Amino acid sequence: MAKIFAYGIRDDEQPALNAWREANPGVTVEFTDQLLTPETAKLAAGFDAVNVYQQLDYTRETLAALHEAGITKMSLRNVGTDNIDFDAAREFGFQISNVPVYSPNAIAEHSMIQMSRLLRRTKELDAKIAKHDLRWAPTIGREMRMQTIGIIGTGHIGRVAMKIAQGFGAKVIAYDLYKNAEIEAAGLYVDTLDELFAQADVISLYVPGVPANHHLINADSIAKMKDGVVIVNVSRGNLMDIDAVIAGLDSGKIADFSMDVYEEEVGLFNIDWSGKTFPDDKIADLISRENVLVTPHTAFYTTKAVEEMVSQSLSADLAFINGEVPSIAVEY
Amino acid sequence: MAKIFAYGIRDDEQPALNAWREANPGVTVEFTDQLLTPETAKLAAGFDAVNVYQQLDYTRETLAALHEAGITKMSLRNVGTDNIDFDAAREFGFQISNVPVYSPNAIAEHSMIQMSRLLRRTKELDAKIAKHDLRWAPTIGREMRMQTIGIIGTGHIGRVAMKIAQGFGAKVIAYDLYKNAEIEAAGLYVDTLDELFAQADVISLYVPGVPANHHLINADSIAKMKDGVVIVNVSRGNLMDIDAVIAGLDSGKIADFSMDVYEEEVGLFNIDWSGKTFPDDKIADLISRENVLVTPHTAFYTTKAVEEMVSQSLSADLAFINGEVPSIAVEY
Repeated sequence: MAKIFAYGIRDDEQPALNAWREANPGVTVEFTDQLLTPETAKLAAGFDAVNVYQQLDYTRETLAALHEAGITKMSLRNVGTDNIDFDAAREFGFQISNVPVYSPNAIAEHSMIQMSRLLRRTKELDAKIAKHDLRWAPTIGREMRMQTIGIIGTGHIGRVAMKIAQGFGAKVIAYDLYKNAEIEAAGLYVDTLDELFAQADVISLYVPGVPANHHLINADSIAKMKDGVVIVNVSRGNLMDIDAVIAGLDSGKIADFSMDVYEEEVGLFNIDWSGKTFPDDKIADLISRENVLVTPHTAFYTTKAVEEMVSQSLSADLAFINGEVPSIAVEY
Repeated sequence: MAKIFAYGIRDDEQPALNAWREANPGVTVEFTDQLLTPETAKLAAGFDAVNVYQQLDYTRETLAALHEAGITKMSLRNVGTDNIDFDAAREFGFQISNVPVYSPNAIAEHSMIQMSRLLRRTKELDAKIAKHDLRWAPTIGREMRMQTIGIIGTGHIGRVAMKIAQGFGAKVIAYDLYKNAEIEAAGLYVDTLDELFAQADVISLYVPGVPANHHLINADSIAKMKDGVVIVNVSRGNLMDIDAVIAGLDSGKIADFSMDVYEEEVGLFNIDWSGKTFPDDKIADLISRENVLVTPHTAFYTTKAVEEMVSQSLSADLAFINGEVPSIAVEY
């Protein structure tokens, strides 16, 4: 019987893990909430593969300890592999997989929910209601359907976002270097980013953080946008010059802003700073603004996404055990 | 030149009023922020029609004073006419219009935004972020696309809500006594409310507050719903037995709830209670809950809706002045 040992399982992952176990009664899955280290590697002795998700590095020592315990198959529940010592992995003959696509909808939905909230001024209205000020004026909202929504990047996530925007009845325009045939046939592409900046009431980003996209949103590009533009970034922090965005908010050029990612987010996001000195003045300022919604890289964080991360990675473990190469195997 | 005098104009109505003036250069429109009373009626002397929106009653005395000032044409910027003394209006020969449909999207969008926020636990997450707790777990969200959304009532607003839900990729089912041909052709109707209660993960109401719909959501109907159901009501307060809803929230039967309307909202909503004794313990309790979103009848309140209320009513005034009967004339 195939045996998989999973590390770092959070409470919210257990339902998905149990569901996979039920769907695969011929496989034993044991787990711990501990992360994989040279010390905890021995917990996997007697198993056929491990299943992991952590920020902590997969060092030579860790991989050696796994190898020592008889394990050379490792499936990541997340996408990022840059914390793996691939030289050591190669030396020990590791087979590795990751989960590159878990739920484009999780991120696309989050972007559109935050966008609609900005237009509806929910942060201001919620604060009024919390203190029992139940007057509606002057907190008037704008409708999604009245907006021209500019989508930058028409990959998986951008295209889901477009469908949501269209469901609201908004006018949608898009820009991408790499054209999607369906979007092109529908005539939704503009030819240049400048055209998108000039026409869009709301701009939302769905492009990777590659060098060519570094600080795509900067003082120059903001100047080309409509006065009172709304900007949403759920993609990568380095797409924006945050100082230029803050200047745009201060001047009123940018009316509203939502961010789920930040260039300096490592060591800041996914940490509890309550009651402690908050280390980033810019983010503290943005969090306090009524026309800004900050989330700490949570756009991906849905039950469906977690279910996909758990079930795809366990299925990849099982494929390795069965001598197959899963489609999500990492080539290195 | 036709001359219209408008009462009770709020700041947020002025852009729409100015836009109508620009589009109708042959018409004089003057206005005040004061409401129409027997005293202020004389401000309209010399004008051809008045334009109004107020909770304050249009009494015999008020209508007599308008008649005295030479005015018998009155266009309401809102839908409700139950504060008009129609006997007096008839006696003085008043022509009256209202605005029955201003923006179904304003209300439909609000309902879907609140629904998606409940699923995504934004109230809980926002509170964490405000106190600088930037951990994402355990505040995991659910995706709209994974839900079966039950729409009760498929009039203008319900149908817009369905389109939005479909844009998210959700499964949509609907119930209405009066079938819409398009919805029926798409096979989206279930035959009974009980079927909808049994199948829907999320239930949203778009029916009028007529006696037949009184307390449609009550202990019996809630018992027929799925465990952990999400309920949204942006339609009428009397559709729900609020005590049964609170009991459902307490037991966990209802996971999340959003309300924009309340059976006892008159004298409570659209008033600033901050720093005062809040008069309704149930609403205070609901406002304080992390899994409940209360808004004080603001679903309608968008720039587009206000623009429609102002422009449709002014155009109706002008039609009366020109001896025409506008399509939105009130028959009484």
